[in-house]
Amino acid sequence: MRVAILLYDGFTALDAVGPHEMLCRVPDTRVTMVAREAGPVRTDTGELSLVAERAMRDVHRADVLLVPGGGQRGTEAMMRDADAHAWIRRIHRRSVWTTSVCTGSLILGAAGLLRGLPATTYWASRPYLKDVGAVYTPGRFVETGKIITAAGVSAGMDMGLHLVSRLTDDKVAQAMQLAVEYDPDPPYDTGSPEKADAATRALALKLLADAAR
Amino acid sequence: MRVAILLYDGFTALDAVGPHEMLCRVPDTRVTMVAREAGPVRTDTGELSLVAERAMRDVHRADVLLVPGGGQRGTEAMMRDADAHAWIRRIHRRSVWTTSVCTGSLILGAAGLLRGLPATTYWASRPYLKDVGAVYTPGRFVETGKIITAAGVSAGMDMGLHLVSRLTDDKVAQAMQLAVEYDPDPPYDTGSPEKADAATRALALKLLADAAR
Repeated sequence: MRVAILLYDGFTALDAVGPHEMLCRVPDTRVTMVAREAGPVRTDTGELSLVAERAMRDVHRADVLLVPGGGQRGTEAMMRDADAHAWIRRIHRRSVWTTSVCTGSLILGAAGLLRGLPATTYWASRPYLKDVGAVYTPGRFVETGKIITAAGVSAGMDMGLHLVSRLTDDKVAQAMQLAVEYDPDPPYDTGSPEKADAATRALALKLLADAAR
Repeated sequence: MRVAILLYDGFTALDAVGPHEMLCRVPDTRVTMVAREAGPVRTDTGELSLVAERAMRDVHRADVLLVPGGGQRGTEAMMRDADAHAWIRRIHRRSVWTTSVCTGSLILGAAGLLRGLPATTYWASRPYLKDVGAVYTPGRFVETGKIITAAGVSAGMDMGLHLVSRLTDDKVAQAMQLAVEYDPDPPYDTGSPEKADAATRALALKLLADAAR
């Protein structure tokens, strides 16, 4: 089983690494980071680089495609990147699963994959799903046909586990949850806009905007 | 505020990236990946590399030190690495917080930082804490003085949020939880050995061992 995770300038590290951690120990599976060019790719805050092992033009097929989200600048650039869209469509044509985390769904949408389909995305980006023809649908992840879109950043871990169950079975997915000791117990309960007050929502957006500068 | 995350051959990607994602947007904070040499560092499954921006010898101070865990081979090599231990002790001397995720606590312990102290680690490695003089204590993370050790892999996210609250305040930490949409909802509830049956525990260890080959 081949998994391709598409990196691009300004992607969010955890969007890629959360699902990677769930998928990289699935038996007979190889996870490959792919980007426009092979080599280091910077994340949205500019402080961290992950290495893409392969260039898009050298990857012709993947059983699972995963497109992470990114900061506003990175996501918008990918929403205008016709080469990336052509590659995404080519991989999607023969994929078993085509998936996204966070604003990665806007990139799948810009590539034309979500027209008329239910999907989710980062909480603050929900209004933009309709601009790419998708129908915002609540959920940590939304599955429609062979496309699965996850909500923001850390939701990629929940989707990743679900994907493991789809690629194998419940037993392997349950063991994978234990393998990464995914027994979440955050000290607060403000992880969705429905659970956070207006001041927390405003501060979250400010932290994101300041860090992107 | 300077955060240094120590990468080494065979570290676990999510151990480093989970806390990184929580910390990299804290106001006036810079997170730097550090390793023996600057450049790409391979994770435990060998499929992914993160780039270390600085070499240990060039980093003399950090307000927060974080040591991620790794696969068995990577962790054991770091438990024998006297140069790394000397660097860890030097940074720890003036740090505000010294932290670990997963088997990173065994590395802190091997460096002599945990003698007689309560600590946690990866679920399957709990018996080894006593070998470095620490006292296994249950918890997603365990705080003692200025040292915080987290449980396995994904526990670094819970510890990361807690650390944000210690570095700033509850309001910023709550906003950070929303910024990464950390509203976990895994499809199973087998994320700790207490919640998983014997077959799931055995399969988790087999998946880890097979992927490390």
